[in-house]
Amino acid sequence: MNPRFIDFYFDFSSPYSYIASEWIEALAARHGSTVNWKAILLGAIFQAAGLKSPVDYPIKREYSFLDFERSARFAGVPLKNPEKFPIPTQNAARIFWWLNDKRDATASHWARHCLRAYFARGVDLSDPARLRELAAEFGLDPAEAESVWNDPTWKVRLKAANDAAIASGVFGAPFFMIDKEPFWGNDRRAQIERWLEKGPF
Amino acid sequence: MNPRFIDFYFDFSSPYSYIASEWIEALAARHGSTVNWKAILLGAIFQAAGLKSPVDYPIKREYSFLDFERSARFAGVPLKNPEKFPIPTQNAARIFWWLNDKRDATASHWARHCLRAYFARGVDLSDPARLRELAAEFGLDPAEAESVWNDPTWKVRLKAANDAAIASGVFGAPFFMIDKEPFWGNDRRAQIERWLEKGPF
Repeated sequence: MNPRFIDFYFDFSSPYSYIASEWIEALAARHGSTVNWKAILLGAIFQAAGLKSPVDYPIKREYSFLDFERSARFAGVPLKNPEKFPIPTQNAARIFWWLNDKRDATASHWARHCLRAYFARGVDLSDPARLRELAAEFGLDPAEAESVWNDPTWKVRLKAANDAAIASGVFGAPFFMIDKEPFWGNDRRAQIERWLEKGPF
Repeated sequence: MNPRFIDFYFDFSSPYSYIASEWIEALAARHGSTVNWKAILLGAIFQAAGLKSPVDYPIKREYSFLDFERSARFAGVPLKNPEKFPIPTQNAARIFWWLNDKRDATASHWARHCLRAYFARGVDLSDPARLRELAAEFGLDPAEAESVWNDPTWKVRLKAANDAAIASGVFGAPFFMIDKEPFWGNDRRAQIERWLEKGPF
């Protein structure tokens, strides 16, 4: 079996992305694969495709919140539904792409740092003050972080990443692309594992 | 662990319902549980709740068809995407409720007979001629079957079953209710199994 690349599309405000972010690296490592983390903005993708968050449908809302926490418990991941949900996460995502382009590997660590902060500790990523604190905890200069998320360069970079995701067929998060095979959702974990283990099925 | 009842809501035109219909009885049997099969019309539920089938969103359509077949292969269930999809299935569903109310256990066998015919053999359940043939194969008098699906009694019965499903919080298929805990989707198989094995988590 050749080593593979896993494109892992996630959104900072997606609980299923958070759950998947907690198992994807270990799963990839077991199969000698490499994860390409890609921060996207689900809101923009939903808008482009006429989709909505499940919590925006009254009939699905209560179930969705129940399932976020239950699916996390099932995966052994600490998750408490945030009071404010969903939230705009473009600032955290711009920092991600800046780290990705400038400093490489730490971008995925930033992703996990923020996802855990929001979903396990209830830290509001859309609040610039909280995000500056998270940047500092992470070892970044908070003023520099703020200038990055206000910089048109990184706004454009995130927009381009989102457009590229849509062009690749991404319509939700988490979304995985392996050997050009698409897998949507935290639920596809077992299928992804089989794919990495034995190839196409 | 007390024996449990599993309410299993399915739609005759839902590929994920078909896949689940192939494992639910064995899973229930392993845990001394009983399955209450409940035929619903997803189209009516979607309409009531402002939802759509994934194949009705252009961006999700191709992925959905790929995932129907791949998820079936993953579960070891023969499935070939039907040429005509989705289809209206109220006639098959009315026969289901008639069997359920009049003859009890054979209703779930009828469900499996029709789901397999549509998804493994491409038999169009919305075609009355095909449905009469399926009824005959199943050991029913095809003329009687046809009079049942045209009978206002069974139209009302199906409508009532659908309304009851919506009132119970059902918004998709397959949908499972165990100890009042809702589980949506063929994907929730592992969580259902854990619930039956060890109780709430």
